[in-house]
Amino acid sequence: MSRRILGIDPGSRITGFGVIDVVGSQRHYVASGCIRTPQGAPLAERLRVIAEHLFEVIETYRPQEAAVEQVFVNVNPAATLMLGQARGAVVTALVLRQLPVAEYTALQVKQSVVGHGKAPKEQVQAMVVRLLSLSGTPQADAADALAVALAHANHSHDALAALSSQGLRVKGGRLV
Amino acid sequence: MSRRILGIDPGSRITGFGVIDVVGSQRHYVASGCIRTPQGAPLAERLRVIAEHLFEVIETYRPQEAAVEQVFVNVNPAATLMLGQARGAVVTALVLRQLPVAEYTALQVKQSVVGHGKAPKEQVQAMVVRLLSLSGTPQADAADALAVALAHANHSHDALAALSSQGLRVKGGRLV
Repeated sequence: MSRRILGIDPGSRITGFGVIDVVGSQRHYVASGCIRTPQGAPLAERLRVIAEHLFEVIETYRPQEAAVEQVFVNVNPAATLMLGQARGAVVTALVLRQLPVAEYTALQVKQSVVGHGKAPKEQVQAMVVRLLSLSGTPQADAADALAVALAHANHSHDALAALSSQGLRVKGGRLV
Repeated sequence: MSRRILGIDPGSRITGFGVIDVVGSQRHYVASGCIRTPQGAPLAERLRVIAEHLFEVIETYRPQEAAVEQVFVNVNPAATLMLGQARGAVVTALVLRQLPVAEYTALQVKQSVVGHGKAPKEQVQAMVVRLLSLSGTPQADAADALAVALAHANHSHDALAALSSQGLRVKGGRLV
């Protein structure tokens, strides 16, 4: 049984996405990229670009689960509001396509992918390249999105393993 | 020719909506209400409720245009982020249903509906009741949403009037 996970790193200018397959303890790269919102365009147009591009990604790669990075709360209220709006468009697009949405902080992603929460961005990206056996380094936001997908793969794997060790057994991806 | 406008006052807990018809200088009440997001539920569930409820409103009343209040930028970053996410869900739902989206600040709404920007909330609500000949006062967020719809009706009317006075003529709602 393989699971396909869509990871997303939302941003007001660039939203990164990354798709991976999880087969047991193996993780395979499927696709990644970034959605650039037209700068200077009205808010409605920017959010439309994010939502419709995500619909295309979902239709093309058919993920079964989604994981979204919890955005950094900026000190500038206008920037925080804009980031919130972009993130709102992302999560709305995912739930309208019936995808379960998990959320991870940047700290959780770093801990899961690198092993400690203070890893610099470059180290996270290097681990993404290594864990997915990529031949080159993806664009920064796409790499962050792949890291979120990897964190979700580890987290849900750990959660199932924990349940399993408590006497529950996992069969065909379901608890029995 | 009549125009049907959907006004929205987004909020992280309650999102108000109001639908009005504009026939020349007349404004008629069509519907209003509020969408309550389940408190304590995960973000994805809260945004799903907002988007799907708005789809129902759009399907039921078939507005041709939408107007959204520009939210107050809170001093608390977490609250600002949540408000942004709710607003992102609102605007995404509107654009996915092909509605043109106009935005108005609270100041613009007050100026348009009451005549000055420092009017207290109660005075705005009283004007909404009067302008739409309502028999009772709607719930506060629904009244705010109706005020946004009224501001949009006035604003677009003024814009057409201004163009018209500059030598352009308006015929059947289009500039000729």
